Amino acid sequence: MSKSIVALSGGIGGAKLATGLAQICNSEELVIIANTGDDFEHFGLKVCPDIDTLIYTLAGVNNSEMGWGRDGETWSFMAAMSELGGDTWFNLGDKDLAQNVLRTTQLHSGKSLSEVSEYLAGQLGVSVQIIPMSDETVSTTIETADGMIEFQQYFVRDQCKPVVKDIVFRGIEVARPAPKFLDLLNSDDVAAFVICPSNPYLSIDPMLSLPGVRDGLRNNNAPVIAVSPIVCGDSLKGPTAKIMAELGVPCSATQIAEHYKGLIDGLIIDSSDAALSEDISSMSISVKNVNTVMYSQEDRAALARGVLDFAKQLA
Amino acid sequence: MSKSIVALSGGIGGAKLATGLAQICNSEELVIIANTGDDFEHFGLKVCPDIDTLIYTLAGVNNSEMGWGRDGETWSFMAAMSELGGDTWFNLGDKDLAQNVLRTTQLHSGKSLSEVSEYLAGQLGVSVQIIPMSDETVSTTIETADGMIEFQQYFVRDQCKPVVKDIVFRGIEVARPAPKFLDLLNSDDVAAFVICPSNPYLSIDPMLSLPGVRDGLRNNNAPVIAVSPIVCGDSLKGPTAKIMAELGVPCSATQIAEHYKGLIDGLIIDSSDAALSEDISSMSISVKNVNTVMYSQEDRAALARGVLDFAKQLA
Repeated sequence: MSKSIVALSGGIGGAKLATGLAQICNSEELVIIANTGDDFEHFGLKVCPDIDTLIYTLAGVNNSEMGWGRDGETWSFMAAMSELGGDTWFNLGDKDLAQNVLRTTQLHSGKSLSEVSEYLAGQLGVSVQIIPMSDETVSTTIETADGMIEFQQYFVRDQCKPVVKDIVFRGIEVARPAPKFLDLLNSDDVAAFVICPSNPYLSIDPMLSLPGVRDGLRNNNAPVIAVSPIVCGDSLKGPTAKIMAELGVPCSATQIAEHYKGLIDGLIIDSSDAALSEDISSMSISVKNVNTVMYSQEDRAALARGVLDFAKQLA
Repeated sequence: MSKSIVALSGGIGGAKLATGLAQICNSEELVIIANTGDDFEHFGLKVCPDIDTLIYTLAGVNNSEMGWGRDGETWSFMAAMSELGGDTWFNLGDKDLAQNVLRTTQLHSGKSLSEVSEYLAGQLGVSVQIIPMSDETVSTTIETADGMIEFQQYFVRDQCKPVVKDIVFRGIEVARPAPKFLDLLNSDDVAAFVICPSNPYLSIDPMLSLPGVRDGLRNNNAPVIAVSPIVCGDSLKGPTAKIMAELGVPCSATQIAEHYKGLIDGLIIDSSDAALSEDISSMSISVKNVNTVMYSQEDRAALARGVLDFAKQLA
């Protein structure tokens, strides 16, 4: 069996590259580590947005129009919830609800989040392994001018409008990487660790902040490659650029290199940012310029191929 | 303010008479006590079939085709649950799910079932009071030849096929009638207690078996009137007749009188059963013959009028 490709991913942007990797890797080679800092409890249900985005996208049942949730979704639950005066700021589609209800039931019965995620992915026909970063709860919390708010309140309820002063991963000190993630960090059979073009602060940092993960990545012989989520000084989707401005850092691929400096061996930046290559190389980070904007399945596979070629080059 | 009419009701049959009473009573006069022995936990949710049938029916949002659940219901949740390999023997519609999720959330936040039921009924525009028989859990359990099974497993999963040897109300010894139910039992302001034409064994007995309820009904000056769910030796709906046969008792309105003997002052039986009046009267139970089969809203109101006239006569 070939060595594993281990991709660290948040939601939408990461899931695009993950599907690209899934197209060109054998399913047993590819492992996706999902951010769970966005997870929260809503209506007593354990909601895991990034895990589910990855499962739905890799299963091909994601809702590409909305950019999240399931295809062919219906909304009767939310309509009735509104009629009953319940909370409606977080949309849970009727089909998506089944995923969340079943996950919650299985967690209550004593299964780990790793086990439940594997089960749910399997039921939807996903053969690639999707592993939560941790089986313990880590809650991304946003410090704003008006105080601390939970990630989903910031992201969904408040539509990323509050100014971010700091980002805190509650529970991170006592959380452990999920067993399979830990095994991979300590394994000689990894071909590359790939940091997907997800939000570094909200989606990737929770994973890197888990005890042992940075050291594990540094000590592992496999190259660590990141794909910049910043193209031409802006984020393609989501609040990355806005957050970088609020945190007082320049919004550029160079800053992404700065952020991951000391951890990554290589950074893939968009061809349009080729002029930044020299600055990034000066941080002892190898640079590769390719098209990183993924509109089509072909774009995703092409970027994935670029990542794997780069990994071989750096191995 | 007039005295209260207090109706003890199970699901569908009881809800029909309850809507009849709601048509002719002022809403502040009418109180429905709902059986909660059928309640159970499913997918971690507190499901209360009789409370919800009463709320939906009185709100006019019940599904009259199915005979249970909500109108205009959709089934995406169940379809996705099936796809995910979860339990599908108990159907929860997408809109119905909102009712169950919100109830569960509110119960977990510390509200009583009485408070939650009042809230949910109010949100759907029901002004009549619907009170659970108890805020504590009582679980109707069926002893069959193959052992004990939970009520919903018997009723829904096994479609009432197992032979009933006994019916046990687990938790009944330590449950108390809900505070408002207890107040009514001890009140001088009740015009009549009405036992709806629900299944005596499955829907009414749980209420009567709560500590203090039989004594409360006997000691209260208000007349207690039952409406027979048996017409011409058969039950109109549900497993009443089948259960009576399995319990070794004749299936007749006379047997209903026998069952409630010592508790009720009057029994309303269907006109077609008029020949049984003498036998029933010999048990010191007054009898009234009317049409008890409710096809239309007019039938419901007419039976309700018959009940209230009978109550005045017996007061």
